[in-house]
Amino acid sequence: MLILNKIADIRRWVREKRMKGLQVGLVPTMGSLHEGHLSLVRAARQENDLVVMSIFVNPLQFGPQEDYATYPRDLARDACLAEEAGADVIFAPEVEEMYPYYPQYTTVEVAQITKRLCGAARPGHFTGVATVVTKLFQIVLPDKAYFGQKDYQQVQVIKRMVADLNFPIAIRMVPITRESDGLAMSSRNTYLSPEERQEALCLSASLRICQALFAKGERNAACLLEAMRERIKQEPAAVIDYLEIDDATTLEPLAVIERPVVVALAVKIGKTRLLDNILLNTETETEAVAETEVVAETEAKVKIKAESDGHKDV
Amino acid sequence: MLILNKIADIRRWVREKRMKGLQVGLVPTMGSLHEGHLSLVRAARQENDLVVMSIFVNPLQFGPQEDYATYPRDLARDACLAEEAGADVIFAPEVEEMYPYYPQYTTVEVAQITKRLCGAARPGHFTGVATVVTKLFQIVLPDKAYFGQKDYQQVQVIKRMVADLNFPIAIRMVPITRESDGLAMSSRNTYLSPEERQEALCLSASLRICQALFAKGERNAACLLEAMRERIKQEPAAVIDYLEIDDATTLEPLAVIERPVVVALAVKIGKTRLLDNILLNTETETEAVAETEVVAETEAKVKIKAESDGHKDV
Repeated sequence: MLILNKIADIRRWVREKRMKGLQVGLVPTMGSLHEGHLSLVRAARQENDLVVMSIFVNPLQFGPQEDYATYPRDLARDACLAEEAGADVIFAPEVEEMYPYYPQYTTVEVAQITKRLCGAARPGHFTGVATVVTKLFQIVLPDKAYFGQKDYQQVQVIKRMVADLNFPIAIRMVPITRESDGLAMSSRNTYLSPEERQEALCLSASLRICQALFAKGERNAACLLEAMRERIKQEPAAVIDYLEIDDATTLEPLAVIERPVVVALAVKIGKTRLLDNILLNTETETEAVAETEVVAETEAKVKIKAESDGHKDV
Repeated sequence: MLILNKIADIRRWVREKRMKGLQVGLVPTMGSLHEGHLSLVRAARQENDLVVMSIFVNPLQFGPQEDYATYPRDLARDACLAEEAGADVIFAPEVEEMYPYYPQYTTVEVAQITKRLCGAARPGHFTGVATVVTKLFQIVLPDKAYFGQKDYQQVQVIKRMVADLNFPIAIRMVPITRESDGLAMSSRNTYLSPEERQEALCLSASLRICQALFAKGERNAACLLEAMRERIKQEPAAVIDYLEIDDATTLEPLAVIERPVVVALAVKIGKTRLLDNILLNTETETEAVAETEVVAETEAKVKIKAESDGHKDV
């Protein structure tokens, strides 16, 4: 697997390919890859001639009390997984390469939507995300970029940034990949003890309760949230950071579900903060979060299917 | 002269040309063109196959008490001048086209360098500049972009932003164009009454004094600044906003000139705030601001000469 560490090198590599008219998909990650990341690579593989994966644990998006130092890193393992899933090259820069003047830095500030949910709990987080994504976009110059729905607010922040700043890049959101018992895949799941791992199921379980009530016709947000809260309370180690039903685009809370919404929650299980969400739409069928229906290990069930046969050798 | 108002139209126009391998130069302006802007067009003409001029009075860079509403606008006149100087197309969007969600907006914040000089006097100004320039860069995707030295801090802010965010664009600074009596050209010079126009000469005159003392060996910033202040004080309507000798890149003040510096000043003449500056370098010959040496009307004297013969018909 080709791994490039320098901005000049990945630029040159991509430029040569682009001059042949090839389409480039970018999958930005912080490494510690799981099946969720690989579903992004497969989605990119389907729609592009070339797939670039970036692996960079971005210090700018971690708060001073957060897990930047301990965030899991294993480039050799990640490279194998990315290659198997169909990535063509990995861009894995050092911090000094990305931020030579750190912490003095130009930042990208996305208004409004960054202030709530994870933005309220993690001040500066989305500034770090928007800034590093801008840099990666300018370095790689992809046609399309792929982000996971698990970090739903992040996707909306990036979509807003791309629209506001006119980046000529299409943003694709790929559905959440779940463990067989429903837990949304996350690099931070490795922090969980066996007991916590069990308690962590309350996130997806509460979303299933919400989904079932919604399917029966419940449209009152307070009722839905209360039912979810009851389920989460059953776990002694679970502390809700936020639990909201918001407009799917603006992320403003809604009292009654009359248009597409995201049901989003962040819950601390011991010291580990986990996210999950589901989209509800009054007009279309909602996605499935039931454990019997979403089995991440079975590739056929991954929402955006990979067609590794379509992998062009360039 | 081709004038496009829509982002989609200028994008399409540039993309078609770029696909033929043509190099694109961008000259961002707020219109109200004078010889200084035209020197940017000529510089762009020399180095590129295509020259795009943007004309957009950017509300985001004006403070609430500033002259956004009264800033001079004359697109028809500007189009004639730009065409004569060698521009190929003008991009002149409406505010709604550039900022559909104004005032909610993603912004680009350049650290440190934006806090001082004009940034101190005009809070938010450089955020507006950095944001609109980012948008124009993403819309036009130029190879090179051209800015005038008259707004020296602006050029440094943009260079810093381009480096920090990895924009694949070269930034060119074009020397100040002056009236025959030394006044730096500015769209805001039209605000001056005949008396104020005369008093406004104190900016370039004080820079000449500084330059002469520097040529004689004076390296103490306080001495140089005091001599300049004496000259400006002679004009009753002149009020100094700032007057500094700063490192030419970081814009941090220096006590002794030991490396390249910018001597920068902002002076209010009545209600009109004017800028001027000069670069001093201990190792190379300094530029000329003497009225006998810089005659804007004489095209041969413009520092970056235009070669209109090199204008390729594409």
